[in-house]
Amino acid sequence: MIRLLGLDADDTLWHNESIFARAQERYRALLAKYHPAAEVDRALFATEMRNLRLYGYGVKGFMLSTVETAIALTKGAISAEEIREIIALGQDMLAHPVELLPGVAETLPRLAADYRLLLITKGDLHHQEKKVEESRLAPHFHAIEIVSEKDPAAYARVLRRHGARVEEFAMVGNSLKSDILPVLELGGAGVHVPYHITWAHEHVERRPDAHERFRSVEHFAQLPAVLAQFA
Amino acid sequence: MIRLLGLDADDTLWHNESIFARAQERYRALLAKYHPAAEVDRALFATEMRNLRLYGYGVKGFMLSTVETAIALTKGAISAEEIREIIALGQDMLAHPVELLPGVAETLPRLAADYRLLLITKGDLHHQEKKVEESRLAPHFHAIEIVSEKDPAAYARVLRRHGARVEEFAMVGNSLKSDILPVLELGGAGVHVPYHITWAHEHVERRPDAHERFRSVEHFAQLPAVLAQFA
Repeated sequence: MIRLLGLDADDTLWHNESIFARAQERYRALLAKYHPAAEVDRALFATEMRNLRLYGYGVKGFMLSTVETAIALTKGAISAEEIREIIALGQDMLAHPVELLPGVAETLPRLAADYRLLLITKGDLHHQEKKVEESRLAPHFHAIEIVSEKDPAAYARVLRRHGARVEEFAMVGNSLKSDILPVLELGGAGVHVPYHITWAHEHVERRPDAHERFRSVEHFAQLPAVLAQFA
Repeated sequence: MIRLLGLDADDTLWHNESIFARAQERYRALLAKYHPAAEVDRALFATEMRNLRLYGYGVKGFMLSTVETAIALTKGAISAEEIREIIALGQDMLAHPVELLPGVAETLPRLAADYRLLLITKGDLHHQEKKVEESRLAPHFHAIEIVSEKDPAAYARVLRRHGARVEEFAMVGNSLKSDILPVLELGGAGVHVPYHITWAHEHVERRPDAHERFRSVEHFAQLPAVLAQFA
């Protein structure tokens, strides 16, 4: 019996990866005269991974990595004006309005009627709070939990804080790696709602399709029906 | 009677502003051939304040503002290599080891014996968690609360979460603006432990010296004695 329902935010409640993808497209275009797109992507991802321990997740770390990569790739030939444009790209991302995914606004009140809802998101505290506020979805949630990493220990801390047993907990999200696998590992349930783009860092080798506490839906609006199956 | 004690982290438990100050010194030196130090400081602070709503507090936002300011101040004459050095400055800040302030390691266990301790810090989630872990102070605390802004609403949320009445709460910190005034406003107590440098953004016009729930000490080690006065 599920009583507590965790919902991821980026790419589950609202668009996020598509904003990164559009920014990265403009970034590639800016560097096109120096390097082919595939090389830019590869170098940027390598910089991001190298800096992850230092920066954590979020747009500001991405911005710093785009500047660093552009300088390294062009061996210092890039101009200050071009770097200014790269920073402006990231500032546009931070100022981008929140766009809810289809079905979210209609389905969330139904879920809130049946379950205690937690919004559980990782990344930059300031930016995530800004998006939660702008989304106007906060009133549906019992609590907003912004964590720096979504691993089993982080989920266990959240459950402890809300006095919930893991058997009563289900997590909903677009990332198998961050939203589903750590919760299944703890003994909870997971419902995957895929987004059309997945960041390379979130890719997993094996889907947990055979797991009895795992479900997958195509649309957010299918959540009430599929969650009822756990009863 | 104080039961719950909140402790600020940056410049209360460990050095922080001095790390910013040293980085800003190196930043001024890098830009010295373009502009006098006072102008660099003024321009950087203006950029930081303009970006605060977008970036929030923390080193990554500071780094982005140093790059943006350098490009603007030099009207694009700064080289990519110099920008790389500016980014390296910030990366050094993020990698800087945590240095506890005098008296903290000895006094914290005594405080933990008498009060339920909360670490309440604002800023970047990832960086603050990294510093808490490295400090090895976490075992003394009942909970770690990382908030994006330290205003009365944020303190009220923390107190609600821990089921505490404000009359039983005292906050300890180096910033009158962030640690003391919002808590006094709510009806709690505040103990100021000054740090030798205060960021311009944290300056306040009037000290609450006459407030009956306000105390000031020179050293962290004086806290047990002064907190006992609230009994």
